[in-house]
Amino acid sequence: MALFSTLTPVIVAILCVIIVFLFKNSKWTECALAKKTVHLPKESKPWVDEDLQDDTEINSENTEDDDWIHDAGEEELPHIPYAPPRYPEPEMLERSQQFYSLMNQRRSVRFISPEPVPRAVIENVIRTAGTAPSGAHTEPWTFVVVADADTKHRIREIVEEEEEINYKQRMGDKWVNDLQRLRTNWVKEYLDVAPYLILIFKQTYGVLPNGKKKTHYYNEISVSISCGILLSALQNVGLVTVTSTPLNCGPQLRALLRRPANEKLLLLLPVGYPSNDATVPDLNRKDLNDIMVFV
Amino acid sequence: MALFSTLTPVIVAILCVIIVFLFKNSKWTECALAKKTVHLPKESKPWVDEDLQDDTEINSENTEDDDWIHDAGEEELPHIPYAPPRYPEPEMLERSQQFYSLMNQRRSVRFISPEPVPRAVIENVIRTAGTAPSGAHTEPWTFVVVADADTKHRIREIVEEEEEINYKQRMGDKWVNDLQRLRTNWVKEYLDVAPYLILIFKQTYGVLPNGKKKTHYYNEISVSISCGILLSALQNVGLVTVTSTPLNCGPQLRALLRRPANEKLLLLLPVGYPSNDATVPDLNRKDLNDIMVFV
Repeated sequence: MALFSTLTPVIVAILCVIIVFLFKNSKWTECALAKKTVHLPKESKPWVDEDLQDDTEINSENTEDDDWIHDAGEEELPHIPYAPPRYPEPEMLERSQQFYSLMNQRRSVRFISPEPVPRAVIENVIRTAGTAPSGAHTEPWTFVVVADADTKHRIREIVEEEEEINYKQRMGDKWVNDLQRLRTNWVKEYLDVAPYLILIFKQTYGVLPNGKKKTHYYNEISVSISCGILLSALQNVGLVTVTSTPLNCGPQLRALLRRPANEKLLLLLPVGYPSNDATVPDLNRKDLNDIMVFV
Repeated sequence: MALFSTLTPVIVAILCVIIVFLFKNSKWTECALAKKTVHLPKESKPWVDEDLQDDTEINSENTEDDDWIHDAGEEELPHIPYAPPRYPEPEMLERSQQFYSLMNQRRSVRFISPEPVPRAVIENVIRTAGTAPSGAHTEPWTFVVVADADTKHRIREIVEEEEEINYKQRMGDKWVNDLQRLRTNWVKEYLDVAPYLILIFKQTYGVLPNGKKKTHYYNEISVSISCGILLSALQNVGLVTVTSTPLNCGPQLRALLRRPANEKLLLLLPVGYPSNDATVPDLNRKDLNDIMVFV
């Protein structure tokens, strides 16, 4: 009994040490989980294309490059004189008016004719898109032009499958009673019909001759600007398209088209003549005063 | 002594409980810190513009809208026939070649003439940019055109101050020996000299008539596409610019120009005629085969 009495504090101490250890471990697990889950906030946001959330600029560990305005690559090049054509003021005004009229006729068109379009025209349109400025002149774009019927059909299947999921997920919340009207939206007949599909990939990084990765700063802005020039070039030759961002189809389409890991699908444009019965929603654009502020 | 012996286990137990509590608190603090720091990874990434990292699509709690391709707004509108001009194939090819030649002459120009440019031309150029497509036709752009000399000068001060910090931070790492050459880079004389500065803001959300916020999906892509059309319109009238993304100047410039909280500065374009002695780096563009894949 005396021995037990003497040992009691020792036993209690051992028990307490065990308790402390258990506590410590349970806390560590919680911490480790917290660290993991905070990095990956997995909420249901069906409209966010996770493949595009690459945060190239944020996660990159490459600090070798300049950003857009610094243009390190350009600094090292010799300069040459630049004297583009100059128009007298009345001609300038006339040209600005004509180009506005041309572009103001542009609409997103979902009714595309299957008639063939000369490939040389498409090539010139892509060349034109390639004249866009880009961060440090990285030209971070790849235009995949699909004319092959089987590949177009496979693209349609991938896009429609994902679109149907997108619509049904959202319908669960709000549009349960309106199945029939929405149904027409995930059916993308134009993906089969249009003579060309142009899939625009942004290159999130480049690969240097020594095999190292080179960050492409502002690649999404650069590629989108290039797309704006592409839309101007299409409008200029009388072709139509609809600017689409196929939600969550990027990885499947990248695999189908065998694009490398640094290329992410930004936009998909079906291109052709408008069909004879093409219609567009009767919408208006904002007035100049609603988009411009003069200081 | 017997009393002490009897109390020893109790004292040890109390001590252990205190130790456990201390341990627990220290662990909690560590966890709380871990949670906080993981949310705000503050590394030195001088090329990342934090003001643009708004993650509009990710953080938004508004699920009322459709994404780009679904165009909910358009669905509810009546459709009207659409029959744009159609060109015979030879004319189409000719037009595509001419537009490519025009756009291929475009260069980013930092030497801008102070000569005045008709305001009507600038207005037509902005109107043209406003014809761009946008996610669910939200038209999420504001073009602030600055002609006022004092405001231009204040913009220059803000941009140069930030640029100097950007350069010096990076120079600390790599370019300590090359101060003189870099110095020319944070001096942006063209911000004073160009007759117009066009500051392009993206509206990260809209405000509905009932005061609720309306998420502008794909606003950065939409506004960048609009900028591509703006660059085409400028090139078409013989004006030059340099597409710049003033790093970390957004909040100050937004305050200076009194833009609302939903507008974030995406691009800053000084616009004018090129100066007589304008030069550009002697760079090449990628060949068609390096930017296009035909399937």
